[in-house]
Amino acid sequence: MMAVGETRFPVMPVIEGLRLGTAMAGIQRAERRDLVVIEMPEGAAVAGAFTRNAFCAAPVTVAREHLDACQADGQGVRYLVINTGNANAGTGASGLEDARATCAELAQLAGVDAIRVLPFSTGVIGEPLPMQRLLAGLPAALHTLDDGVDAWQAAAEGILTTDTRTKGASVTLALGEQTVTINGIAKGSGMIRPDMATMLAFVATDAALEPVLLDALLREAVERSFNCITVDSDTSTNDACLLISTGRGARVADETELTIFRNGLLRVMTELAQAIIRDGEGATKFVTLHVDQAQSRREALDVAFTVAHSPLVKTALYASDANWGRILAAVGRAPVEAFDVTRVTIDLGEVRLVEQGGRAPGYTEEAGSTVMAREEIVIRIVLGRGEQSATVWTSDLSHDYVTINAEYRS
Amino acid sequence: MMAVGETRFPVMPVIEGLRLGTAMAGIQRAERRDLVVIEMPEGAAVAGAFTRNAFCAAPVTVAREHLDACQADGQGVRYLVINTGNANAGTGASGLEDARATCAELAQLAGVDAIRVLPFSTGVIGEPLPMQRLLAGLPAALHTLDDGVDAWQAAAEGILTTDTRTKGASVTLALGEQTVTINGIAKGSGMIRPDMATMLAFVATDAALEPVLLDALLREAVERSFNCITVDSDTSTNDACLLISTGRGARVADETELTIFRNGLLRVMTELAQAIIRDGEGATKFVTLHVDQAQSRREALDVAFTVAHSPLVKTALYASDANWGRILAAVGRAPVEAFDVTRVTIDLGEVRLVEQGGRAPGYTEEAGSTVMAREEIVIRIVLGRGEQSATVWTSDLSHDYVTINAEYRS
Repeated sequence: MMAVGETRFPVMPVIEGLRLGTAMAGIQRAERRDLVVIEMPEGAAVAGAFTRNAFCAAPVTVAREHLDACQADGQGVRYLVINTGNANAGTGASGLEDARATCAELAQLAGVDAIRVLPFSTGVIGEPLPMQRLLAGLPAALHTLDDGVDAWQAAAEGILTTDTRTKGASVTLALGEQTVTINGIAKGSGMIRPDMATMLAFVATDAALEPVLLDALLREAVERSFNCITVDSDTSTNDACLLISTGRGARVADETELTIFRNGLLRVMTELAQAIIRDGEGATKFVTLHVDQAQSRREALDVAFTVAHSPLVKTALYASDANWGRILAAVGRAPVEAFDVTRVTIDLGEVRLVEQGGRAPGYTEEAGSTVMAREEIVIRIVLGRGEQSATVWTSDLSHDYVTINAEYRS
Repeated sequence: MMAVGETRFPVMPVIEGLRLGTAMAGIQRAERRDLVVIEMPEGAAVAGAFTRNAFCAAPVTVAREHLDACQADGQGVRYLVINTGNANAGTGASGLEDARATCAELAQLAGVDAIRVLPFSTGVIGEPLPMQRLLAGLPAALHTLDDGVDAWQAAAEGILTTDTRTKGASVTLALGEQTVTINGIAKGSGMIRPDMATMLAFVATDAALEPVLLDALLREAVERSFNCITVDSDTSTNDACLLISTGRGARVADETELTIFRNGLLRVMTELAQAIIRDGEGATKFVTLHVDQAQSRREALDVAFTVAHSPLVKTALYASDANWGRILAAVGRAPVEAFDVTRVTIDLGEVRLVEQGGRAPGYTEEAGSTVMAREEIVIRIVLGRGEQSATVWTSDLSHDYVTINAEYRS
């Protein structure tokens, strides 16, 4: 399986009171971690962002309900339970029953109310959850709860589907004389075009933050990280991103510390989002699209995603073919009002491709090919219309993408 | 090369006064028709629809200018000149000069004004037109002008790029005691998601119609034919569709005859549009998407195109995998306000896949697989929100699509 660049699971400092457990429940395939439980201490705050797909999965519906109830009564969430191998999506009323029964069983084993448990699923759409195996795996997952880096790595493994790599990111920040940690894990490789959240991401910190602020910080960071990636334009039914604050570490005390925390959170979530692209289905290239001088951020994103979703641009990237005409054609069909293309410039890495409506005078095929041969490629599109910008990350369209998706049941 | 179903170039009756000529000018590759001239008689009316890509090609700009001038002075267009192998797009000011010089040379050879000539190009983007070879081919193309079916077929060949088949359609209609003919040819296989017109289509009739009516009929038929197809969501820089009325046949005299003509025109243009999908790059399936009970036609089209553009749906179609969860996920992410998915039903051929938010109770994998094994597949999505509908035609995403576009310079 392909993936772009090297990777290593990061060192994850302990976040006091937050523990992770895993089990091989036989939901996906034998001898594969496929069930994860995350425990948080009493008093932890949780913020969540979920898919906007109208056919959202049963666990998304239940997780939303339970999170709302916990936020309303102020007593907080205590457990997350995540299975891979089955998305419990497109499963109607019985899917909702299964998600609720999963929460109820874990709640009973752990001695909490069922609404303190949020369920998550990822995998094949439309099959009933294998409830017997799932429920049978819960005691084992609880038994392995631990706060060490191995527990984080095992949990990162336990949420994967077509991913070829675990995805983790961590920062430690100085707040006054104390330090706080932000750890995150994510999964995702195909059906990736998150809309308000990504496939599955769980980020935790010991920093103490008001729930309302935690929620705002999550939404802001999602908007600049997971909502700026695309593998194949297909928004999943199961996307969810959770941000947990155990509140046992330093309090974010003033504007300066808030900025430090905000930047640290954005860094963790951007690393996770980029890790999803590097491990995009069949990916051989990691592509950064900068769009500058747009009239609005929406406009900049529209242009970036139009290029990022173009099958012709993606196949040219796969072929390492500096086929700048396809980039130009994709920019030209983006939904931009009164678009004067003579003001547009397009750069591939350090090479100017397009200006004044056509090929840049100094452009040579050799220069373009040198950049296209790289594994990591930056395309900068300057619209000459305003002052807003956006950055989007994407992968290429390879034979492996077709093979994976003609063979795998997502 | 793949393509879906059988095909045969149709019998094309003579349209009096309309002649077609071709040449092998060496623009694309040796021993390949790549230059076409279409001559129409004085007094013919022409309507045109062109790409909305903001980076539209130089010949599109010049064809628009000349058509406007001819419509304004009432003296009409006399020649179309079409080359394949080079799109003359993304070529800036020198591209415009080349397109004008092509018109000027043909005009001089034929003894008309340059504005009576409309230029069209298709092929690789961003390379300068090989003017010497193109201009040298014009006398040969004029020399072969003829009105027989062989001339139509040669012209249909002469406009192809990655197409594996010529595309023609013809109907003969009874208007009172006379008959009129509508003949059309088209090309297109990749970079197909027309926006107001398709890659290149030329349709001609001997029926006499007022220019304003001709224009309205063209726009209406384009909206229901070429604007309802997609191979890969990439709108070309060179799309153009021309409708020519020589006016030498019967006059469309009343509402009844107008309805007959309108239906005949829609039939010719729909056949050509469908022929483009059957010959879509790497196509192994011909897929019809019906969306019913939408609140607006725009909403129905949005849902249909979201499904038609989904790489996951397209790879499942390629694999003949009845992966209805991917169709459900694509419908769920379509831009529909306040979308209640429990009212949605999705049928694959005669098999109900989805109802009440999940898999239909009677569904079996075997029934789904039987339909998916077919070469021609119909998917019907009923939204339960209103009374509007739309039909869109598309192809699948195969290894050949990736191979063609990783190797071909479009």
